[in-house]
Amino acid sequence: MAKHRGKQSMEFERSIAIVSASATVGTKEGEGPLREYFDVILTDNLCGQESWEKAESKIASDNLKLCINKAGLKPEDISYVVTGDLLNQCCGSTFGVRSLKIPFFGVFGACSTMGEAMGLSSVLIESGGAKYVLCGASSHFASAEKQFRFPMDLGTQRTPTATWTVTGDGAVLLAEKDEGPYIRRITTGKIMDMGITDANNMGAAMAPAAADAIYQHLSDFNFKPDHYDVIATGDLGYVGRELLIELLKNKGIDISKNHIDCGIEIFDRELQDTHSGGSGCACSAVTFSGMLYNKLRHKKIDRLLFVPTGALMSPTSVQQGESIAGIAHCVGIEN
Amino acid sequence: MAKHRGKQSMEFERSIAIVSASATVGTKEGEGPLREYFDVILTDNLCGQESWEKAESKIASDNLKLCINKAGLKPEDISYVVTGDLLNQCCGSTFGVRSLKIPFFGVFGACSTMGEAMGLSSVLIESGGAKYVLCGASSHFASAEKQFRFPMDLGTQRTPTATWTVTGDGAVLLAEKDEGPYIRRITTGKIMDMGITDANNMGAAMAPAAADAIYQHLSDFNFKPDHYDVIATGDLGYVGRELLIELLKNKGIDISKNHIDCGIEIFDRELQDTHSGGSGCACSAVTFSGMLYNKLRHKKIDRLLFVPTGALMSPTSVQQGESIAGIAHCVGIEN
Repeated sequence: MAKHRGKQSMEFERSIAIVSASATVGTKEGEGPLREYFDVILTDNLCGQESWEKAESKIASDNLKLCINKAGLKPEDISYVVTGDLLNQCCGSTFGVRSLKIPFFGVFGACSTMGEAMGLSSVLIESGGAKYVLCGASSHFASAEKQFRFPMDLGTQRTPTATWTVTGDGAVLLAEKDEGPYIRRITTGKIMDMGITDANNMGAAMAPAAADAIYQHLSDFNFKPDHYDVIATGDLGYVGRELLIELLKNKGIDISKNHIDCGIEIFDRELQDTHSGGSGCACSAVTFSGMLYNKLRHKKIDRLLFVPTGALMSPTSVQQGESIAGIAHCVGIEN
Repeated sequence: MAKHRGKQSMEFERSIAIVSASATVGTKEGEGPLREYFDVILTDNLCGQESWEKAESKIASDNLKLCINKAGLKPEDISYVVTGDLLNQCCGSTFGVRSLKIPFFGVFGACSTMGEAMGLSSVLIESGGAKYVLCGASSHFASAEKQFRFPMDLGTQRTPTATWTVTGDGAVLLAEKDEGPYIRRITTGKIMDMGITDANNMGAAMAPAAADAIYQHLSDFNFKPDHYDVIATGDLGYVGRELLIELLKNKGIDISKNHIDCGIEIFDRELQDTHSGGSGCACSAVTFSGMLYNKLRHKKIDRLLFVPTGALMSPTSVQQGESIAGIAHCVGIEN
């Protein structure tokens, strides 16, 4: 039985193990610093499909199947699949999950989706009513640019605070097992809105949500920041990371030594011209399923606080002058 | 501890009670056959806002607060809020939930969202880690028409198979209590795709998913259709209902006597010119929070199988020739 802890956290009693993980990425991500950790690096970002959207679904579909295969299982062994993405009406997931024929919970948390999916999937296992739960998140640079910013063909110049949407899908499979790493606890974020309206500065919009979720997590469990070897946020990028560290310092918490950001890790800023860093649902999802899971398995990290971050907005909401709300979900993972 | 039942179902051990429910609807819904059951009937579908999207968020926000108030609680008493809607990037929910400051799980299941939200919220309670969980779903006729079909000002003629998106928000609050009605069991739908490509015939796209979910539910629990006083699907409408009954008859199951469809119940077909019926996330959400919850509380219904249905598509996916996938989630509710 899970325990409600503090103001907004939950601690699990079962040993909710991450049984397998898989990460598929696009060509650019495959040229970046994390390339050795990815299962599949695409040579064709269209995956032989007719559109970027269909390519994203194909990536999601293939990567989810890979995650099941890596655990030596079949789709019919899986109780639930919990996934999400950035496309309108979450079509990346819909058409990615369709062929699996697994009971499906679609989730939307913008780029925090992987954190939300891992949290809800853990709760499904903890409830006792599910054996294996597959969760994941996807994004595609080209489908996101087209939908949120400008058609690629325009060659529009990017602002220095802009981030680069990661192409890929990250997935993990959860089950109650006696071999870790285990998801021990979660802190589910509240929506935080500091009135940011610049859709090219998502880092600033998400940093307050990340700061709030991390602060709440540490306080709900009475942890010092060094309880975790690594605190990995989703896609704050260089601009958002500075803000996060500053915001937490103002509350007397210093995470500057053990904090990393998946958006900073995934690209080489100088060589890859990605400005403030990587973003998109897949940014934290593939960095976790690739590098972080590998380091947990090989005991290079023993305690990880994984904090995917999301900017909640749509082109319509931005055009209507609505500010960009942020959210972040903490997932505490330990060996 | 929940039990996994059959192929894709879960049965709860705790008494997961629906503590309160609230339904806010637009003017047209307020003139329909269910008007006596709604908490709030709007006189201005714009709710004093500047856009249909902002109006939808305002409706969601006010209705969620109403649901909390009706239980004599405050937002800070609520462990989690689980909501979704049809707008791009689920902005109806984002900006509807923002002011509540409650840990938030965003979900997307198109018009099946209320079923998905009630299912996941039940699992959150069952896990032991949540006390009160608020869930809901919203839609708005004007924001949906604008996004999925044509600008309202065009006055485009509607096809006979078309449905009318319900304006409103339906919400329920769950907790472990000793006064029902209780959510006893759920069957989570798989994505079903029969190759339908007509975005004006959602009923046909969703009927196979509803048939599959209901068949699976009855078979997982070894129930006959008359175990339930009422089996209420979400928004199949007149076209989809006929198909559903036919599809189940082919499998030897007759639900023609105890089946109703929220999309048929909510409007008067003759007087209100709504063609195949109502649709949208709010269709099943307000019909449940309004009429069905009322009848459960007053023991006019003792056993209800609530089956919200969703058509998974986006304007982009339809334009790209992708078929419309369906999903349906069963929620078994009993006194």
